[in-house]
Order: sequence, then structure tokens, then C-alpha cells
Amino acid sequence: MAKAYSRRRGPCAKTAERRQRILDAALQVFAAHGYRAGSMREVARVADMSLSNLMHHFKTKDDLLLALLERRDADSPGQRTGTNDLVADILAQARWNQTMPELIALYSVLSAESLTDGHPGRDYFIERFTTVRRGFEEEFAKLHDAGRLRPGVDPHMVAGSITALWDGIQLQWLLQPDQIDVVAYLQAFLDLVTQPADSALVRVIPEN
Amino acid sequence: MAKAYSRRRGPCAKTAERRQRILDAALQVFAAHGYRAGSMREVARVADMSLSNLMHHFKTKDDLLLALLERRDADSPGQRTGTNDLVADILAQARWNQTMPELIALYSVLSAESLTDGHPGRDYFIERFTTVRRGFEEEFAKLHDAGRLRPGVDPHMVAGSITALWDGIQLQWLLQPDQIDVVAYLQAFLDLVTQPADSALVRVIPEN
Repeated sequence: MAKAYSRRRGPCAKTAERRQRILDAALQVFAAHGYRAGSMREVARVADMSLSNLMHHFKTKDDLLLALLERRDADSPGQRTGTNDLVADILAQARWNQTMPELIALYSVLSAESLTDGHPGRDYFIERFTTVRRGFEEEFAKLHDAGRLRPGVDPHMVAGSITALWDGIQLQWLLQPDQIDVVAYLQAFLDLVTQPADSALVRVIPEN
Repeated sequence: MAKAYSRRRGPCAKTAERRQRILDAALQVFAAHGYRAGSMREVARVADMSLSNLMHHFKTKDDLLLALLERRDADSPGQRTGTNDLVADILAQARWNQTMPELIALYSVLSAESLTDGHPGRDYFIERFTTVRRGFEEEFAKLHDAGRLRPGVDPHMVAGSITALWDGIQLQWLLQPDQIDVVAYLQAFLDLVTQPADSALVRVIPEN
């Protein structure tokens, strides 16, 4: 065990630790200033290392940004409740997000900033939105097949809508945390699109 | 008439025209680079005037940003259909927005960028979200009173939700204009929260 531990402290582990420290610093700097206005120099200062040392690990600011975005995805594996209940999983993830305002702000700032000319994060966000929508669509299609979506609700549209609503309401929450309850908004939307399992009791009386 | 026209060409009109030209340039520059990375020098270049001339009209980049945001509100007086129909008005506004991707991108970039430390647009966006939500809440409350909201739908929550959904789906549209139909998403959401005037035909059969 001691040997395994000391192996983890070898040169490779040191590099990995340094990279993590740089990414922590980059998160702080980009969340505070945005990617464009955040500088490598400032990241190095926050990471408490020299600029050339930082650039040994990340040659360019673009490399740093992409590594940060990838780590974000790895760190948020989805706060699954283990209940296989999509609604419960979404609300659990939303609650978890509220404990990480800095990370959510980074995501908000960068996703919008990626619209600007030649932004290195643009392809990442196009890919990410496509993947997130596709994942939700599959999950909502399962609910649909189980008779848990309200009649007329389209899994494809719900997938895009909840992605958009979630991003939009998080932005409002970040600006006014005391005014906006992200979980309540997501819950209200999910209440609109789903129906309880015993909803056969709700029927439409045909006009005649 | 000739006199009135020539009066409009006097020094005041000249100043107003210059300001408009500067704001047009600022819109282009801030939409392309964001506020933080967009420079006064670049705005002056695009407006085809000297930096000192520009600074005669707008002393600081903050002044310029705030004037631009104010003009945006003045330019988008709401694309009312004149039908006094909230749903039709929202969809008309959404269609109008699609003709102005640059302006919508500017709004997306700046609203998210306003989360960053000490951003001069933050108070503007807090104020704006508060006003927009309040306006929608009043409109949806009228629909509620007219029996046009689905049972259980809360005007306050719908107001925040449609604001969030709209912002979020516009961001996805700006990244993937061929994939995302903003109007269709808003229509689908409004279908979820409203019911037709003759909806007394839809009833819940009580369990017994």
C-alpha cells in the first residue's frame, strides 16, 4: 500500500496534480473575466506558478479552455438518484448545480461567448448541445412509451425545451440567487409535460 | 418642409447621427468579440472616425455599452400584432428576432458576460429580467383570469419559464440555426400552458 501510495506521488502524479491546479485556477479566472479577457498570466498567478511553467502544461489559452470544458463534463457525471426516474434525476442534478455557482457561471459565460468570432469553444458547445438534446430525447421517449408523457407532448421538443429552460433559468438564478429557484422551475416544467402513472383516470370528453 | 429638413441637419442632428453610427459600430464589435474583448479603438475603426472623436460622444466603454443596451430596448418596442393576443404577440416577436441574429447574439453574449466580476451591464440585466418577468406575469395573469391557462398553471412560474426558455433556445439557435426553430419551441411551450377558449369540453373524470 505504501508503495502504491508513493507511486502515485511520482512524476506522473505530480504532472496530473499540476494540471488540476492550473485548471482550478483557470476556472476561477475564466468565470470571473470570461475566456477572452482572462489571461494566461492571471491563471499562472492564481495557480501560484510561473507563466512558462503553466505553458509547459498548456501551450495556449485555447488548450487550457478545452481541457477545462472536458474536465467539467468528467466532473459532472450526472447526479443520478439510482431510481431510474428521469424527473428525479433532473431535479437531483439541478440541486447539485446549485452548490457549484462558479462552475455554472463559467458554463453560462463560455457558452454565450462561444458565439463570438472564432471562439475556440464553439465546436465544443455545438457538440455538447447536440449530445445533451439527444440524451434527453431518448429518456423522454422512454417516458412516452411508458405512457408517462402527456398526450401530444413530443420527446424531441421536450428535450430541446428543458435544455434551454435549464440554461436560461440558471442565468437568471446566477444574477438573482435570492429570487430564482431553479429546481422549482424545472419541477413546474416537468409537471407540465408528464402525467402520473394512474393518469388513465384523466380523459377527454369528446364533443357531441 | 425644406426648412424643417435643414433644421434636422443642424449640429444636434449631426450629433445624433454620429451617436447612431457609433452605436451601430459598437453592436458589430461587441457581438463579434464580447464587451470585454471589444475595444474602443476597434469601435472607432468600424465607425470610421478617430478614437478621440468617438470619446467625445462616449467617454468610456461602459457609457457606450449602456447606451447600446438602452437603444436595444428602444428599438424593440415589442412586435405586437395588435390582436391583444399574448400568444400571437410572443410568436411575432420571436419571428422578428430571427431577422436580427446579430442583435440577439449581442444580447446573449452580454447577458452571460454580465455575470463576470464588475461587469458594467450587470445591473441592467438584473433590472431587465425583473421587468420582463413582471410584464409576462401580468399578461399571463390576464389569461388565467380569462380561463385560458391550464388548471394548476401559475402565471408567476410561466413568466420566468418563458423568459428562460426563450433565452436558452435562442442561444441554441444562434449556434445551430439550421437545427433549431425558436418559434416552434415557444409555440410548443405555450400550447402546454394554455388551453383553448372552449376548453370547458375537457374535463377530469373524478375517481370513484
